[in-house]
Amino acid sequence: MSITMTPIGTVHGGRDAPEDDDWGRSRARIDLDPARFDAEALAGLDAFSHVEVIYVFDRVGDDQIVSGARHPRGNTAWPKVGIFAQRGKNRPNRIGVTVCDIVSVEGLSLEVQGLDAIDGTPVLYLKPVMAGFAPRGAHREPDWAREIMKNYW
Amino acid sequence: MSITMTPIGTVHGGRDAPEDDDWGRSRARIDLDPARFDAEALAGLDAFSHVEVIYVFDRVGDDQIVSGARHPRGNTAWPKVGIFAQRGKNRPNRIGVTVCDIVSVEGLSLEVQGLDAIDGTPVLYLKPVMAGFAPRGAHREPDWAREIMKNYW
Repeated sequence: MSITMTPIGTVHGGRDAPEDDDWGRSRARIDLDPARFDAEALAGLDAFSHVEVIYVFDRVGDDQIVSGARHPRGNTAWPKVGIFAQRGKNRPNRIGVTVCDIVSVEGLSLEVQGLDAIDGTPVLYLKPVMAGFAPRGAHREPDWAREIMKNYW
Repeated sequence: MSITMTPIGTVHGGRDAPEDDDWGRSRARIDLDPARFDAEALAGLDAFSHVEVIYVFDRVGDDQIVSGARHPRGNTAWPKVGIFAQRGKNRPNRIGVTVCDIVSVEGLSLEVQGLDAIDGTPVLYLKPVMAGFAPRGAHREPDWAREIMKNYW
């Protein structure tokens, strides 16, 4: 079974290399495909502070995909964990999901800050961040998950 | 440009109809495709309390997809907003993203609570929820976004 998707738009600007850290100040624009959408599609998004961007790591080759376990970022100081227990980009289906700040919405363009996707990345979907969809109950994560995020933003 | 994805697994159990509310107590199992994965893929996921499940609303027909604006849930008491300013399922690419509680991890199976996907739903990806990926800065959302979530979980 395979599922075919068509990107709804593209990332423009921001960084042009997938580095590990310092994404917090990166600003970029997501432009919707004008052949399929008009400004109605983004109407009301500016009432939210944050948007969840679902995109594709399209520069990751098939031979780079990991389906088992590995050390996050190849760092052996951190435990070897399954690809579904980490957020690295070399993953089956190459999907990225990131919450960004909404800077502005204008016509078919959405300007965001803190998007960890590079210039030219295809975008599959956008969702407003609602407090009601935040994790319910107490949060728990291993130490390495805190360490890996130390300089990320 | 189109992007082809292969589900990594399938939702088993939980509800069998896409209702609007009361998803909080729903328990379901996500089974990874045994032809492509072994237990290594989920190793270490049990150190996290929550997982983000990326799935496909595969029962939504092409003719149901909205690309412009509509009232969330068709409720005219709420403003008409763009499809990218709401989280309804009749959306381009039909992608669902939800944070669930991890109940247990065993072999190729992940048991979760609070997954708003029905029995048989194809799963595209799993990500552990890291505190470092939570929204940065103050949160803002319109009143309707709070109201629509009132009985969701």
